[in-house]
Amino acid sequence: MEKEVVIIGGSDLGISTALRIRELNKKIKPLIITNNKFPNFSICGIPFYISGEVGHWKNLAHRKEEDIRNKGIELMLNTEVTDINHREKYILIKEKDNRRKIYYNKLVLGTGGKNIIPKIEGIGLSGVFFMRWMEDAINFNKYLESNKVKDTLIIGGGYVGLEMAEALIKRGLNVTIVEFFDSVLTTVNRNFRDMVKNKLEKNGIRVITSTAVKKIEKEGDKLVVTGNNNLAEKVDTVVASVGTEANTKLGKNIGLERGIKGAYKVNRKMQTSINDIYAGGDCAETLNNITDKYNYYALGTVAHKHGRIIGENICGLDREFAGVIGTQSIKLFDIVVARTGLSKKEAVEREFNVKSKLLESWDHKVYYPPVYKMYTEVIIDNDSKRILGAQIIGNKNAEIAKRIDIFAAAIFNKMKTEDFNQLDLSYTPPLSSPWDPVQMAVQEIEK
Amino acid sequence: MEKEVVIIGGSDLGISTALRIRELNKKIKPLIITNNKFPNFSICGIPFYISGEVGHWKNLAHRKEEDIRNKGIELMLNTEVTDINHREKYILIKEKDNRRKIYYNKLVLGTGGKNIIPKIEGIGLSGVFFMRWMEDAINFNKYLESNKVKDTLIIGGGYVGLEMAEALIKRGLNVTIVEFFDSVLTTVNRNFRDMVKNKLEKNGIRVITSTAVKKIEKEGDKLVVTGNNNLAEKVDTVVASVGTEANTKLGKNIGLERGIKGAYKVNRKMQTSINDIYAGGDCAETLNNITDKYNYYALGTVAHKHGRIIGENICGLDREFAGVIGTQSIKLFDIVVARTGLSKKEAVEREFNVKSKLLESWDHKVYYPPVYKMYTEVIIDNDSKRILGAQIIGNKNAEIAKRIDIFAAAIFNKMKTEDFNQLDLSYTPPLSSPWDPVQMAVQEIEK
Repeated sequence: MEKEVVIIGGSDLGISTALRIRELNKKIKPLIITNNKFPNFSICGIPFYISGEVGHWKNLAHRKEEDIRNKGIELMLNTEVTDINHREKYILIKEKDNRRKIYYNKLVLGTGGKNIIPKIEGIGLSGVFFMRWMEDAINFNKYLESNKVKDTLIIGGGYVGLEMAEALIKRGLNVTIVEFFDSVLTTVNRNFRDMVKNKLEKNGIRVITSTAVKKIEKEGDKLVVTGNNNLAEKVDTVVASVGTEANTKLGKNIGLERGIKGAYKVNRKMQTSINDIYAGGDCAETLNNITDKYNYYALGTVAHKHGRIIGENICGLDREFAGVIGTQSIKLFDIVVARTGLSKKEAVEREFNVKSKLLESWDHKVYYPPVYKMYTEVIIDNDSKRILGAQIIGNKNAEIAKRIDIFAAAIFNKMKTEDFNQLDLSYTPPLSSPWDPVQMAVQEIEK
Repeated sequence: MEKEVVIIGGSDLGISTALRIRELNKKIKPLIITNNKFPNFSICGIPFYISGEVGHWKNLAHRKEEDIRNKGIELMLNTEVTDINHREKYILIKEKDNRRKIYYNKLVLGTGGKNIIPKIEGIGLSGVFFMRWMEDAINFNKYLESNKVKDTLIIGGGYVGLEMAEALIKRGLNVTIVEFFDSVLTTVNRNFRDMVKNKLEKNGIRVITSTAVKKIEKEGDKLVVTGNNNLAEKVDTVVASVGTEANTKLGKNIGLERGIKGAYKVNRKMQTSINDIYAGGDCAETLNNITDKYNYYALGTVAHKHGRIIGENICGLDREFAGVIGTQSIKLFDIVVARTGLSKKEAVEREFNVKSKLLESWDHKVYYPPVYKMYTEVIIDNDSKRILGAQIIGNKNAEIAKRIDIFAAAIFNKMKTEDFNQLDLSYTPPLSSPWDPVQMAVQEIEK
């Protein structure tokens, strides 16, 4: 078999690449090969499926299989790619006892990430779950339904760990988070972490920090989780969520250059170190627009951008990826926490002359109820006055996520504080102030 | 009396100027002179006071009188300035039968706007109201409380007219809007205007378009409003809201250059044509950042920006106003309509090679209910691919106002479509998609 474009992986990167190719060149019919039966599922939605908010897991599909095929994209599901021969430009797929060759002109690697398996004795016991792919979610949900689960423990207080904690509380279970570092959500500033911890605790979640889990043991139907600081918890299930590394076995075998967390090294065109092989999404490194250095970001937004760039380059558009700036947001119960750009710590590490301020404000004119408190931290380089980063926390009705995006757009454009104040942002009393709180926060620095 | 800085007008422009001066130079104590007793009131909030949502009118104060004085700003309330002598650099204020001189080093004119009085016979009758200053709001509210008002008519379907219509419906009154043009809210595209009209009508507001009011007559306790298209409405009160022009009598007397709607001509430093006299807010022209031409925008956001620039220049910072781009938003019932940059019509008039698309989308991932429809129009110059404008309409929970601000930041930075897709915007399933709808809308143009 011979194909113009072969894409390995049917999640965000693969689908984004294929869709962009179809928009630009109807002659190319990209082939997507996946090792599961769930192409184009929103794996970011898994916590909301576990919570019961999503309804059927099938709702998590960005697009149905037939929608993808109708776009002129070929799909080969439940198919394992075992090898790449980059000299002769073919891949090998497993078919029962055979291997079949598929020749490619361009190959795209979108094999995604895999869970970092913490070094904990008993991490492989039944009743211990990782959340990454649809199978994980479906299996975990079945486990919760068919066992008398009451007490749960989550290892890791990052984005996914916190979303899973909320999901399990919403299912009426007891939830304990055990975090190795001294706080949850270490990507935001310390004030915000404390507010998040309070929010979790107010909603009945136990939060244990500065504690390493060492061992998980079976004791009857229970799992006993032990670690330092006298950790000894008896629970019905454990969810481990301590991060992602790249799934790059295929490329490793042929010597593709790899970097942070095993991720493929790519240039700005998303090309790997071997001709005609592109990589993106969770299996590749990602350029940071501010630092101009590569890092590892396992995020759906990044994978979609990578895919679009790859599709455009395959179609001859000669596009370069501009890099991400570290924008992230999370909704927890009735609050939203969002960040973009560099944190204060990251900015100091990069030797900027850092100045920062944290402003408490209302989200809109206080005379129009209901009004919501929000907290905005702005981080600047005090030499150039360039805005380096921002973080906001507040009520979910305070348009926090899209307010952080105003900063994201400003930081991407390397705006300085003075220019930021000149931005013509929208105002009506029920939604903002004549100076939007994001501008007030920047003005705090200039007082 | 001699003062370093004298500011005439205590609304947004005056206060913003004075506050910035105090931040930068504690030695200067600016004097603000107002012809009323309401310094620093949010006159944008008047419709929400009339609706009953604000509670007491005093809540509309951005700051209390004592807060302003405590900032080191002098206030002279209920004081009329009758003349400026720019050669000897003093102003004259009226004190009972006397005139008193106050010498200035720098004079700031923030005398605001005044209502455009439509050429309608009987527009001066009692029972006919204009909404601009706090006195108007308080008087109108008293009128509604002390008379058996049931039927109301609003002349003008712009931002204030529509907000007043919602306010009066919320008070349980009957409301008819009469608009001269062929639709309400002519600042947004025709699809959006129709959606707004539907929303008004669904909420019980009658909307009459393409109709000029010619005459208002007293008939007992009633007002009879007649015009073309057989308009004949018998109502208890009329609110006229047909726009704003500059209040520039003081400057006219001394020959200050004036332009559109009588507004003071200013340069980028907000200086008028006479040395040491600055002007800003509703009494001055405003630079448009996209067209690089001056226009008239009577908006609180603009006045605040002008004031900040004036304050900085008075303190020697040498700042230039970058210009606005026409961002506006309005909440009506459960929807928000927002715009920024040029409309399609404005872009065509300026001879850009205009291309535009209107995208219907969800505000966030559809699997996480409740989800809201939103409509995003993007207008670009198809030669340079620069984004010229954007308009969004949708549910008030869809973060429309701050989504338009992402476009506002992008347009201010002259971003092209390709770069806009590279923006690292925040994503979590309850609040957005891996491509935010604003990016999806831009991608529609590139398909």
